[in-house]
Amino acid sequence: MRIAVVAPSCTLDRAAAARLEAMVVERGDCDLRIHPQCFLSDGHFAGPDTERLRALREVMADPAVDAVWFARGGYGSNRIAEAAASDLPEAARAKTYLGYSDAGFLHAGFDKAGLKAVWGPMPQDLLRADGEAAAGRALDWLVSGSPQALEPGLDGPAMAFNLTVLSNLLGTPLEPDFSGVDLLLEDVGEHHYRLDRTMFHLTASPNIRRVRQIRLGRVSEIPANQPEFGAGDHDIVRDWCRRSRIAFGGIADIGHDSANKVVPFR
Amino acid sequence: MRIAVVAPSCTLDRAAAARLEAMVVERGDCDLRIHPQCFLSDGHFAGPDTERLRALREVMADPAVDAVWFARGGYGSNRIAEAAASDLPEAARAKTYLGYSDAGFLHAGFDKAGLKAVWGPMPQDLLRADGEAAAGRALDWLVSGSPQALEPGLDGPAMAFNLTVLSNLLGTPLEPDFSGVDLLLEDVGEHHYRLDRTMFHLTASPNIRRVRQIRLGRVSEIPANQPEFGAGDHDIVRDWCRRSRIAFGGIADIGHDSANKVVPFR
Repeated sequence: MRIAVVAPSCTLDRAAAARLEAMVVERGDCDLRIHPQCFLSDGHFAGPDTERLRALREVMADPAVDAVWFARGGYGSNRIAEAAASDLPEAARAKTYLGYSDAGFLHAGFDKAGLKAVWGPMPQDLLRADGEAAAGRALDWLVSGSPQALEPGLDGPAMAFNLTVLSNLLGTPLEPDFSGVDLLLEDVGEHHYRLDRTMFHLTASPNIRRVRQIRLGRVSEIPANQPEFGAGDHDIVRDWCRRSRIAFGGIADIGHDSANKVVPFR
Repeated sequence: MRIAVVAPSCTLDRAAAARLEAMVVERGDCDLRIHPQCFLSDGHFAGPDTERLRALREVMADPAVDAVWFARGGYGSNRIAEAAASDLPEAARAKTYLGYSDAGFLHAGFDKAGLKAVWGPMPQDLLRADGEAAAGRALDWLVSGSPQALEPGLDGPAMAFNLTVLSNLLGTPLEPDFSGVDLLLEDVGEHHYRLDRTMFHLTASPNIRRVRQIRLGRVSEIPANQPEFGAGDHDIVRDWCRRSRIAFGGIADIGHDSANKVVPFR
C-alpha cells in the first residue's frame, strides 16, 4: 500500500508530517510519500493553484500510488477541483482519495467523475489531542479496510460532507448525484443562524431532496448567537428536513475531531 | 405616500423606531406606520415565522400602503420569502419593497414574482453614525424619487445583493433571472477565504453568468485571515469574474454603512 500525501488546500504543518512519518515507520505496513508541495505556502494556500494542481495530478497519474491522502483542509481545493477531475489518466481510477472538510470539493467532483472518494481523518489531525487515534484509524482503513474505522451506521450508499462546503458546491460543475445516498453532514465554527441559512439553501436543492436520508455528525465550535438563536443544531437540521420532506436519520459519528470516522462514498 | 414598516428578519430597535418617527414628523411629507410586529422577539427573529409572514402579507395586501419598508436585516426573511411571494393579492403589485442585506431573499423572490424590489437603507440604520443621512436618503427616494439617492453608476437594469445572501438563494425557488442586469454586490463580516469561496459558488452559476456585469460595493469588517489571504476583496471579485468570463464593472456605492445608496431592481 503506497500512500501519497498532497495538499490541495492549506500548508501541512511540519510537526504533523514528522509524527505521521514516525507512525508509519512504527507500523511498518505501508509506504508513505509526503509530496514536497505539502510544505509550499502562497498566502492562504499550500502554493499557487498551478503547483497544488500539478502535485495532485502527478500522484493521481502515478500507477504506483494506491491512495491519495489529502494533507489537511482549510480552504482552496475548489479552485483546482474541476481541473483535477478532468481528462483523467487511467491510473487515477484505480486508487482511493481520502480526506474531509475542504476536501469535499474534490470528493464531489471526483465522485461525479467515477473516482473513489472517502471521508476520513487527515495528516494534519495529528496536531489534535488524540490525533494519533484519528490518523491511525485512517491508515487502518487504507491498509486493511478495518471495519472498526467505519462510521458505525453505514448500511448502504453514503456520502459525507461539511455542510458549508457542500452548500458552496451546489450548482457548480462539481455537484454529484445524491440520489438514494445517506448524506452525512457536520460543521465547525458556524453560528446557528448560518447553519439555519445553509440548511435552507441545501434542502431547497432537488438533487439533495433525492437522498435516502440526512444524518448529522458533530457541529462544533459554534460561536455565540446574539440573541440566543432559539434552536440547537439538531433542531435546525431536523426542521429543514421536515420542511423539505427529507428523512432525518439521526446522528452520524463524524466531525472536526479525533473521533471522526471513515465514510467511503457509494 | 404611506410607508409600512415590517420586520421579516430581526427585531427593530425601539430607539431606531423613535428616531424614524421623529424624522417623519419633522419632514411632514409622508405617513409612516411601524407595524407592531417589528418589536416581537422569538429567539433570533422578530417573532415566529407565522407572525412575520402575517404582518408582511397584511401590508402587502393593503391598498392604502404605497411602500413596504423592511425594518432591518440580520437573518430570517428566507424562512418566509417563498410564502410571501405566493398567491399575491393585486394590491401587492402596486407598491415598492425597500431594504437590503438579509432582505435580499425577499427581493429575489419578489423580483421573480414581478414585484418592485429596491435596495436601500433601512430604519435600523438610524443606529449607525450618520444614520439620519441614510434613512433620509431612503425617504427622499420613496417620497419624491430623488435622483441624488440613487447609486451613481446606474445606466440600465440593475440588481443589488449581499454576496453571502445571494449565494444562499441560488438554486432555491427564490432565484430570479439575472440576464442582462448590472449585479451590484457588497458584504460584511466575511473572511477573505469566505469571500473567495462564495465568489467561486456564485460565478459558477449559468444564470449569474448572464449578467451584463458585476460591480463591487463596500466589503466591510473583514476578519483577519491567518495566514494573510494574499488578495484583497477587489482582487478576489475581479479574479472570479475573469475565470467565469463575467465583465467586472468596477466599484458600486453600496454597503453596510450610512453611505449606502438606492438601487431599484430592473
